[in-house]
Amino acid sequence: MRILLVNPNTTRSMTEKAAVAARAVAGPMTEIEAATSLMGPASIEGHYDGALALPGLLDEIRKGEAAGAQAAIIACFDDTGLDAARAMAGIPIVGICESALVTAGFLAQRFTVVTTLERSRVLIEDLAARYGLGHRVKVRAADIPVLELEDEGSGALDKLRRQIERALEEDGAEAIVLGCAGMADLAYALQQAYHVPVIDGVSAAIKQAEALIAQKLTTSKRGSYASPLPKNYTGAMSVFAPE
Amino acid sequence: MRILLVNPNTTRSMTEKAAVAARAVAGPMTEIEAATSLMGPASIEGHYDGALALPGLLDEIRKGEAAGAQAAIIACFDDTGLDAARAMAGIPIVGICESALVTAGFLAQRFTVVTTLERSRVLIEDLAARYGLGHRVKVRAADIPVLELEDEGSGALDKLRRQIERALEEDGAEAIVLGCAGMADLAYALQQAYHVPVIDGVSAAIKQAEALIAQKLTTSKRGSYASPLPKNYTGAMSVFAPE
Amino acid sequence: MRILLVNPNTTRSMTEKAAVAARAVAGPMTEIEAATSLMGPASIEGHYDGALALPGLLDEIRKGEAAGAQAAIIACFDDTGLDAARAMAGIPIVGICESALVTAGFLAQRFTVVTTLERSRVLIEDLAARYGLGHRVKVRAADIPVLELEDEGSGALDKLRRQIERALEEDGAEAIVLGCAGMADLAYALQQAYHVPVIDGVSAAIKQAEALIAQKLTTSKRGSYASPLPKNYTGAMSVFAPE
Amino acid sequence: MRILLVNPNTTRSMTEKAAVAARAVAGPMTEIEAATSLMGPASIEGHYDGALALPGLLDEIRKGEAAGAQAAIIACFDDTGLDAARAMAGIPIVGICESALVTAGFLAQRFTVVTTLERSRVLIEDLAARYGLGHRVKVRAADIPVLELEDEGSGALDKLRRQIERALEEDGAEAIVLGCAGMADLAYALQQAYHVPVIDGVSAAIKQAEALIAQKLTTSKRGSYASPLPKNYTGAMSVFAPE
Amino acid sequence: MRILLVNPNTTRSMTEKAAVAARAVAGPMTEIEAATSLMGPASIEGHYDGALALPGLLDEIRKGEAAGAQAAIIACFDDTGLDAARAMAGIPIVGICESALVTAGFLAQRFTVVTTLERSRVLIEDLAARYGLGHRVKVRAADIPVLELEDEGSGALDKLRRQIERALEEDGAEAIVLGCAGMADLAYALQQAYHVPVIDGVSAAIKQAEALIAQKLTTSKRGSYASPLPKNYTGAMSVFAPE
Amino acid sequence: MRILLVNPNTTRSMTEKAAVAARAVAGPMTEIEAATSLMGPASIEGHYDGALALPGLLDEIRKGEAAGAQAAIIACFDDTGLDAARAMAGIPIVGICESALVTAGFLAQRFTVVTTLERSRVLIEDLAARYGLGHRVKVRAADIPVLELEDEGSGALDKLRRQIERALEEDGAEAIVLGCAGMADLAYALQQAYHVPVIDGVSAAIKQAEALIAQKLTTSKRGSYASPLPKNYTGAMSVFAPE
Repeated sequence: MRILLVNPNTTRSMTEKAAVAARAVAGPMTEIEAATSLMGPASIEGHYDGALALPGLLDEIRKGEAAGAQAAIIACFDDTGLDAARAMAGIPIVGICESALVTAGFLAQRFTVVTTLERSRVLIEDLAARYGLGHRVKVRAADIPVLELEDEGSGALDKLRRQIERALEEDGAEAIVLGCAGMADLAYALQQAYHVPVIDGVSAAIKQAEALIAQKLTTSKRGSYASPLPKNYTGAMSVFAPE
Repeated sequence: MRILLVNPNTTRSMTEKAAVAARAVAGPMTEIEAATSLMGPASIEGHYDGALALPGLLDEIRKGEAAGAQAAIIACFDDTGLDAARAMAGIPIVGICESALVTAGFLAQRFTVVTTLERSRVLIEDLAARYGLGHRVKVRAADIPVLELEDEGSGALDKLRRQIERALEEDGAEAIVLGCAGMADLAYALQQAYHVPVIDGVSAAIKQAEALIAQKLTTSKRGSYASPLPKNYTGAMSVFAPE
Repeated sequence: MRILLVNPNTTRSMTEKAAVAARAVAGPMTEIEAATSLMGPASIEGHYDGALALPGLLDEIRKGEAAGAQAAIIACFDDTGLDAARAMAGIPIVGICESALVTAGFLAQRFTVVTTLERSRVLIEDLAARYGLGHRVKVRAADIPVLELEDEGSGALDKLRRQIERALEEDGAEAIVLGCAGMADLAYALQQAYHVPVIDGVSAAIKQAEALIAQKLTTSKRGSYASPLPKNYTGAMSVFAPE
Repeated sequence: MRILLVNPNTTRSMTEKAAVAARAVAGPMTEIEAATSLMGPASIEGHYDGALALPGLLDEIRKGEAAGAQAAIIACFDDTGLDAARAMAGIPIVGICESALVTAGFLAQRFTVVTTLERSRVLIEDLAARYGLGHRVKVRAADIPVLELEDEGSGALDKLRRQIERALEEDGAEAIVLGCAGMADLAYALQQAYHVPVIDGVSAAIKQAEALIAQKLTTSKRGSYASPLPKNYTGAMSVFAPE
Repeated sequence: MRILLVNPNTTRSMTEKAAVAARAVAGPMTEIEAATSLMGPASIEGHYDGALALPGLLDEIRKGEAAGAQAAIIACFDDTGLDAARAMAGIPIVGICESALVTAGFLAQRFTVVTTLERSRVLIEDLAARYGLGHRVKVRAADIPVLELEDEGSGALDKLRRQIERALEEDGAEAIVLGCAGMADLAYALQQAYHVPVIDGVSAAIKQAEALIAQKLTTSKRGSYASPLPKNYTGAMSVFAPE
Repeated sequence: MRILLVNPNTTRSMTEKAAVAARAVAGPMTEIEAATSLMGPASIEGHYDGALALPGLLDEIRKGEAAGAQAAIIACFDDTGLDAARAMAGIPIVGICESALVTAGFLAQRFTVVTTLERSRVLIEDLAARYGLGHRVKVRAADIPVLELEDEGSGALDKLRRQIERALEEDGAEAIVLGCAGMADLAYALQQAYHVPVIDGVSAAIKQAEALIAQKLTTSKRGSYASPLPKNYTGAMSVFAPE
C-alpha cells in the first residue's frame, strides 16, 4: 500500500515528525510518502491560513495520486480542504481530526480535544458537530503557537499537560485527543502518564487510510463529491482547471 | 455607505446581474462596488471549484477594504470563504446563503432552497444546519449548470419553476429561496407568480451589510475570527502573508 | 418607509428610549412610529406578563397597519406574540430577540445574551434554540428588574457590566447581545468599553424591517401564518374577531 | 382529587365531549370540573386564535384554583398558554399535546399526530421538538375545520381515517395521536379498527394530572415558572395584575 | 388494576423499599406485586451488570404477565431491558428513568438527576437524550455505591444532599430527580427540605402504569416492538425461546 | 495480531461467512479467531433476541480475551452488548454497525443502510443517531428474515437489490451500508454493480480492530466503561460475577 501524507503547511520539520508517527503505526506492507506543501502558510492557525493553504495542499494530492498513491491524508487538525480533495481525487482522502474523533469514539463516551490556540477551538467544536460528535467532545486550547511545538524549550508540553489535567478533572473526559499534527510525537508518553487513551490524529488517519484501501473502498462520486466539471480557470489558478 | 459585492467566480456577466439586483434594493445613500475575481473558476459548482476560488476572492476583499469599502458581500450561495474573509478583514463580511436563510426565517417557518446542481444540494443542507436552520429548510437541485442561467434559451427557468412547484406541493414550503447568485434577476417575478415570498440572496445580503454598517458593528476579533498572525507564506501564496 | 415600533408593555419611558435607539440607526427615508400598549403589564418579566401583554400588543399592530405602517417591530426581548402577529398582519413583523441573535450570527461564532431576571433566562435559551442558535448562544441574567433600567441610580449598569465581563472570561463569548429593550441606550458605550460587538435588539430590528420592506417581502400566508379564519370571538376579546 | 378541565375556546359542546372522555378514564376518587372559556375565539385554529384565547383561559384556571382544584388541564392540542399558566398557578398544569406525546412515547418509537388544519401542522411539529420528540413524531393535517368535528355529517371522520392510513403506510407510524381535543370521542374505536395504539390527549392529560397530585408534586417556582411579580396592569387586563 | 414491580437486581431489601414507595402513591384499586430477580447481579452499577440482569428481569416479567399483571415496571434507573421487555410482553412496560424524566418535564424547564456512581452518569445522560430531554437535564453522580443506600449509617444521604445543593446553585436546576430506585424513600423529605419538586422514579412509574391501563393502551406491536419471531434458542437461554 | 470475531447468534454458517469476509481484508500479520455463541437465539431479529444473546456473547469475549485475543468484534449489526463488553474487557471491542457507519462517513455525505426486517429499522436509526450520524443516514428494511440470507434460493438478494435501487433514486444515497453480518459476502459484487461504495460491517470492523491494536489503544477505564465492581451474582448468571 502507498499512502500519501500531506502536510498542508510549508514547515518541513512538522512533516518529518508526522511521518515518523505515521511509519510507527503503519502496517508492514505500507509505504508512507510524506509531502510538504510548496505554497502557503508556514503554519495553519485559524480560517485565513487554512484558506490559503488549499492550492498547495490540492497540488500535492494531485501529484501524489498521479505518482501512484492509493490514499491521501491531510495532516492538519482543521481537516483543511477535506471536501475539495474528496471531490478532486479518485483515491480516498482522510482527515486527521475526523480520524482521531472516530477512533476516540470506539474507546470512550466523552473525550476532550486539546488544541493549540483559542482561535482554533470553535473551529474544532464545529468539526466535531459536523462529524456528529458534538455531544461527546469538549475542546480546550492550550495557548501554544503551532511552531512552538517544534521547539523543545518552549514550555509547550507543560501547557498541554495542564489542559489534559483540567480535562480529566473538570470535563469528565474519558480519553484525550491531541488537536494538532505537531503533537504526534507526544501521544504515547502522555497515555502512559495519565492512564487514559491519548489519540494522535496522524496515527489514526494512517490506519483509516489502510482500512479503506484494504476494503477496496474510495470516495463516492455520486452527489456531494462528484468530480469537478471541466471549465475555465483564470490567472494563478489556471493550473488547477479540471479537464 | 460603500459596499463591495464580490463575485468569487470569474464570469463578469454574473457580477453584472448581481450588481443590478443589489442596486435595486440598496438604500439611497449606498454605493455598490461590484468586483469579479481575477483568478479561479468560471463558475463554482461543488467543493473543488469553491476551494480554488478562495485566493481570488480574498484578494478582491482585501483590495476593496483598502479602497474604502465598509462591508463586503460574497456573492456565491455556497458562502465560499466566509470564515476566512471574516478573519482577514476589518469590515463586516456577509454571505448570500446566510442572508437569504435568515431573511426567510422572518417570513416563514418552513422553506425550500432551489439550487442548481445536485452536487450543491448537500453542501447547502450542511450550511443550513450550520446556521441552525436545518429543521426548517429543504434543498432541491434543479439540474441547471450555473452558466446556463446566463443563457435565456437554456430552459433553466422552466426547470426552476418545476422545482418550486414541487416544493410548494410536496415539501410544505411556505417560502422559496433562490440558491444561486445567478438567479438574482428572477426573484420578484417568481414571487408574483407563486404568491409566496421568493428570496434572492444578493438582495438579502445588501440589506444585511447596510444593517451592520448602520449599527456600527463589525466582525468580532476575539476568538474564532482573530486577525491572522504574522508569518511566512511561500510560493504563489506569498502575496497573502499577514503582516 | 413607515415602521411601527410597538412596546408591548405600558411604560412610556421605555417606548421613548427604544424610539431614540431606533431613530439613531434608521435610514434617511424611514419614519419610526412608536406605540405603547394601552392594556397589560407595566413590564414583561416572565411568561405570565407575556401572555397578558398580547391583546394590547396585537391591538397596536392592527391599528398601526391600518394607519399605513409597512412593517412592525415587537420591542420585547421575549419576542412576545411574534407568531400571532405574523398570522394576523399583512405586513412583516420583526422580533428584537430574533433580530439581535441573527445580527450577532454575522459577527461571531459564540455569543452571550445578558438579560434582566433569572426567570427570563431559560425562556431566551429556548428562543435561541427555536431560531437554531442554541449551540452558539449562552444566556446570563444580571438580576435587574426591568423597570430599574429606567432609573439611573439603581446600579443596573454595574450588574450588567459584571455579567458581560464574566461572559468574556468564562463563556468564550465573542460578542454580547443585550437581552432587554430597556437596554437599547447602552449598546454603543459598552461596545467601546469591551472591544467586542455589543448588539441591541431594537436597533437590529429596525434594520431587518427596512430590509424586508426594501425587498418587497412580507410574511408568507401559506401554512403556519395563514390569515385567521373568520369566526365568533366572545366577551372582552370580541373586538379581535377576524372577519 | 379535583381536576379542572379548561376548554380554552368558547364552544361548550367541545367542553362537554372532552369532559366525557375525561370522566371515562378518571380514577374513582377523581372529580372532573369542566370549564369553558368566557372570552375569546369559538375555536383555536392557528397562532392568532391561540393568543386571544389566553386571558379567558388564565381566568378559568385562576377561578378553578381558588375554588379548590388540585390540578388543571388545558384542553387544546396547541398547549396554548401552558407556560403562562404554570407561572401563574400554585397547582400543576397539564397540556394535552404534551401528555399525548409523552404517553405515546411509552408505547412506540415512532408515531404520527393527525391534526385538523394545515396551519396547525408546523405548530405541533415545533411543540414536539420542544418536548424533545421531534425525531420520533410526524404530523399530518386532515383538512378538517375544528368545529366540523362537532358535526357528525361533515365527513370529518373519513378525512381522519385517510390520514391514519397514510401514516401507517407511509410514515412507519407505530401509534397514532389524535391532534385535537375535539377528537376525544374517537380514540378507542380507531384503536380497535387499526390495531395500533390511538392516543387522545384529554384522556392522557387526566391521568398525568392525577399522577402529579398523587405524588404531591407541583410546578417548580424556582426559575422559569417563578410567580409573577406584583406590578401595575392597565386597561382591560388590569383584572389580571399579580399582587 | 394489577401492576408488577420488578427489581432487576437480586437484593430483596431494595425491592421492598421500592414496593413501599409504590404503594404510597398507587390508586385505591391498584394492587402492586413486587418481584425480585432470581438470577443476576446484587446491584446494577454500569453496563455490564445491566446486561447480565436481563434474563432474570425478562423472566419475572413473563411470569408476572402470565399471572395476570396488567402492566410491569422495571425498577432500575438505567431502564435496563426496556426495549426487550416491550417486544416480549403483551402488557405495557414502564421504565423508572423514563417516568421520572417525563414527570419532571411537567413541572420544570431544567432539572438535575442525582445518581449513585460516576459510571452511571453518562449512561443516564444518554437515556435523557434518547427521551429527547438532553437539553433540559443535567446528571450528577454522588459517589454512592448502590447498596450503601440500604445502610443508614453509610453517609449516603449527606453525599446526596451535597449534590442537590450544587445542582440548585450551579446547574440552575428547577427540580431534582433521584437517579436510583434505592432512593425511593427519600423523595418527599428532600422536597420539603429544598422547596423544589423532588421526583422518585418508582412513584412516577406506578402512576404511568396506571395511566396506560386506565386508557386501555399497550405497547404497539407494529414495527420496533413486534413480537419475537419463533426460533431456536440454545443452551441456558433455551427457556426463553419465543414460540 | 489476534482478533476475535464473535457471532452473537448460534448459527455457525453465519460465523463462517463472516470469518471469510474478515480474513479477506485482514492484514498479513492478523489472525482471525471466529467464535459462535453457545447460548441464545439462532438469529437476532429485534430487541428481545438481542437481550438474550448477551450472556453467550459476553462469555465468548471473556474466553477469547483469556486466550490472548487483542481485540474483539461483535458481529451483529445491532451492536448488541457493545457497552457491556467494553466495560467487561481489557481489550478494545468493536461493533460492526459503528464500524460500517464510520467507514461510510469517510466516503460519502449521505448514505443508506439496507437491513433485514422492519423491526430492526428504527433500532438502527437510533444507533446511527447515537453515533452522531442521524442526519446523514437513512435506513431501509428489505423484508428478509436473517436466516434466509443463508439460503441462496430464497430471493433475498433480489429484495436487497430493490432497496439499494430505491436508496439511490429516492434517498439521494451516495453510498450503501449492508445492515446485517449475514450480508458480508455480497458487498463487493454490489459495489461493482451500482458504482457506489458498498460497505460491509464485518470487513470494516476488522480494520478498526487492527487500527486500535496498532495504535496501542484500548477502551478507557475511566467513567462509562470502568471495570465491573466485585459483587454477588445469583443463579444461572453466577458464573459471570466480577471478581
